[in-house]
Amino acid sequence: MVYNFNSGPSILPGEVFEQASRAILDFNNTGLSILEIGHRTPLFQEVMDEAIASVKELMALDKEHEVLFLHGGASTQFFQIPMNLLNENETAVYLDCGTWGTKAIKEAKLFGQVAIVASSKDKNYTYIPKGYILPAGAKYFHYTTNNTIEGTQMHGIPETNIPLVADMSSDILSRVMVFNRFDLIYAGAQKNIGAAGVNLVIVKKDILGKVDRKLPSMMDYRQHIEAGSMLNTPPVFAVYLCMLTLRWLKKSGGVAAIEKINDEKAGLLYKTLDELPVFRPTVVPEDRSKMNAVFVIDDPALEKEFQAICKQEGIVGIKGHRSVGGFRASLYNALPLSSVQVLVDLMKDFANKKG
Amino acid sequence: MVYNFNSGPSILPGEVFEQASRAILDFNNTGLSILEIGHRTPLFQEVMDEAIASVKELMALDKEHEVLFLHGGASTQFFQIPMNLLNENETAVYLDCGTWGTKAIKEAKLFGQVAIVASSKDKNYTYIPKGYILPAGAKYFHYTTNNTIEGTQMHGIPETNIPLVADMSSDILSRVMVFNRFDLIYAGAQKNIGAAGVNLVIVKKDILGKVDRKLPSMMDYRQHIEAGSMLNTPPVFAVYLCMLTLRWLKKSGGVAAIEKINDEKAGLLYKTLDELPVFRPTVVPEDRSKMNAVFVIDDPALEKEFQAICKQEGIVGIKGHRSVGGFRASLYNALPLSSVQVLVDLMKDFANKKG
Repeated sequence: MVYNFNSGPSILPGEVFEQASRAILDFNNTGLSILEIGHRTPLFQEVMDEAIASVKELMALDKEHEVLFLHGGASTQFFQIPMNLLNENETAVYLDCGTWGTKAIKEAKLFGQVAIVASSKDKNYTYIPKGYILPAGAKYFHYTTNNTIEGTQMHGIPETNIPLVADMSSDILSRVMVFNRFDLIYAGAQKNIGAAGVNLVIVKKDILGKVDRKLPSMMDYRQHIEAGSMLNTPPVFAVYLCMLTLRWLKKSGGVAAIEKINDEKAGLLYKTLDELPVFRPTVVPEDRSKMNAVFVIDDPALEKEFQAICKQEGIVGIKGHRSVGGFRASLYNALPLSSVQVLVDLMKDFANKKG
Repeated sequence: MVYNFNSGPSILPGEVFEQASRAILDFNNTGLSILEIGHRTPLFQEVMDEAIASVKELMALDKEHEVLFLHGGASTQFFQIPMNLLNENETAVYLDCGTWGTKAIKEAKLFGQVAIVASSKDKNYTYIPKGYILPAGAKYFHYTTNNTIEGTQMHGIPETNIPLVADMSSDILSRVMVFNRFDLIYAGAQKNIGAAGVNLVIVKKDILGKVDRKLPSMMDYRQHIEAGSMLNTPPVFAVYLCMLTLRWLKKSGGVAAIEKINDEKAGLLYKTLDELPVFRPTVVPEDRSKMNAVFVIDDPALEKEFQAICKQEGIVGIKGHRSVGGFRASLYNALPLSSVQVLVDLMKDFANKKG
């Protein structure tokens, strides 16, 4: 038995694996593989339509919000967003609360002015900055809802009267949010939506078309919207996996239902971490991520020992990011509570023996 | 039985479908799906390494040529190439010989000057322009080796002393070429390399780093090279499919061996088209593509009838592109000669009855 705590690419529902495996041999009884069907066929159009409709339904999006499945990951959006939204002499406001936000800031600077409204770099991004005032007149405000590497998560939504842009790669669809409050949401699929190789972008059309520069066709959200998210050959199989995963989520009761399970999973793990002195969570309690729990074992010998035990017991992907060290347990939607229970039992057993 | 003549996404080898289907349930006996393994693991590094090494081997590339698997398709390269190679005041030379080249020209104009050295637009791109003289001093020369939509193919390689850039999306690895003569080659995977969602880029490092503009990280070939084609999360499964397909091609004897079969397939089909007056190939004989055979039936009633017969007999994807009409039979590497034989027999039978 393997318990997959990978941070992304990461676990998907078992039934998605089974359906995808079958569709590679025979898609919908066509005698064709999903990998060899034309993207301009009704066969694939249905897949794309269902994927888009599922996103709209699960996130309760209003009609102003367009849904796109684009090539690439969040890293492409880091520059595509300012390219579409920010003129050279205009200012975008960014919150600096982790590795990915830092990368987004670097790319935005190529296209216009960037104001960093607050940062948690002083404490290795182990908390979410609070109490800052968003400047008026800026073009948009960008933040990362969940920091995959550092294990922090902003539990509310910032109040702002400028367009709100969020990288939701690692916590999208994991909790109920008023998604309509955002003007642009993006998320690499490889956590809660599907597998690597496609990026979900949700954008309000009225923020587009306001920059002076000419955009390459493939970088222009408006062209993608007009083409129904098929401006060029889309990543067919990656979109199909999203469709299956979204279908599973709907069947499982939607975002509110999965949030309840996610709360249980995170609650169980953090409670254990707080109870056992050998483990030390690195993030301040109020900003802890329910998707990525980061913790360390201060004694290097014990750290190695626990790593070895995890490996032996089939616990996979629990090593912390190289920039943080220690451990990280990712608790995405598809990870069952039972896997967290296995990890927690192992931790208790370890603490008993070593504590 | 289904005979898949799709123009892309298109048929892949049966054993690739089988291996991919299994890997989605259990990859290399890890108990994990290929869709849920981390991209920074030795598991995936081996996949990427083999895919890159196979390209180098199959194309006999020298050490100056770097191999990248990037997000997106050829449409992304249409702008990424001039972005990396062309300053605003510099000129790039393009050959205008089909729909895709036209799109590439449009994107290049956003970054610098474009000189169109020759065009076959006057005859709906049914031939490859010849006899033009490449201007000296231009930054690079760009052409499309095979025009998927119009069914033309340039059988030689243009002589030039400026960097040579080619879109090989629809005929890469189908025939022996001196690939080292190119400075940049790109190809969407969804014909001869794998499935949609990844793009092969082969680039000589010494043509890079010569533009004034600052490049977004994800658009900078040099950063991708430095990162070993893993600057961000790669499209894991799409790269895995490329690796499997390339492995199959090596096992099948490599490019020279597949070229022999491709010659047979195209020879058989064009011979039949030339023999049967009811079918009319649209491309001049010397420029016909061995990958995409385009033909029409001038009588609309007969055209519909033949479409219906194809459908009935399991011949899939043979409808011509909407901009050309008629029929298009795509004969990519994975399409067996036996499928062409089925089509040819059907054509003869149809001609006998209707001619």
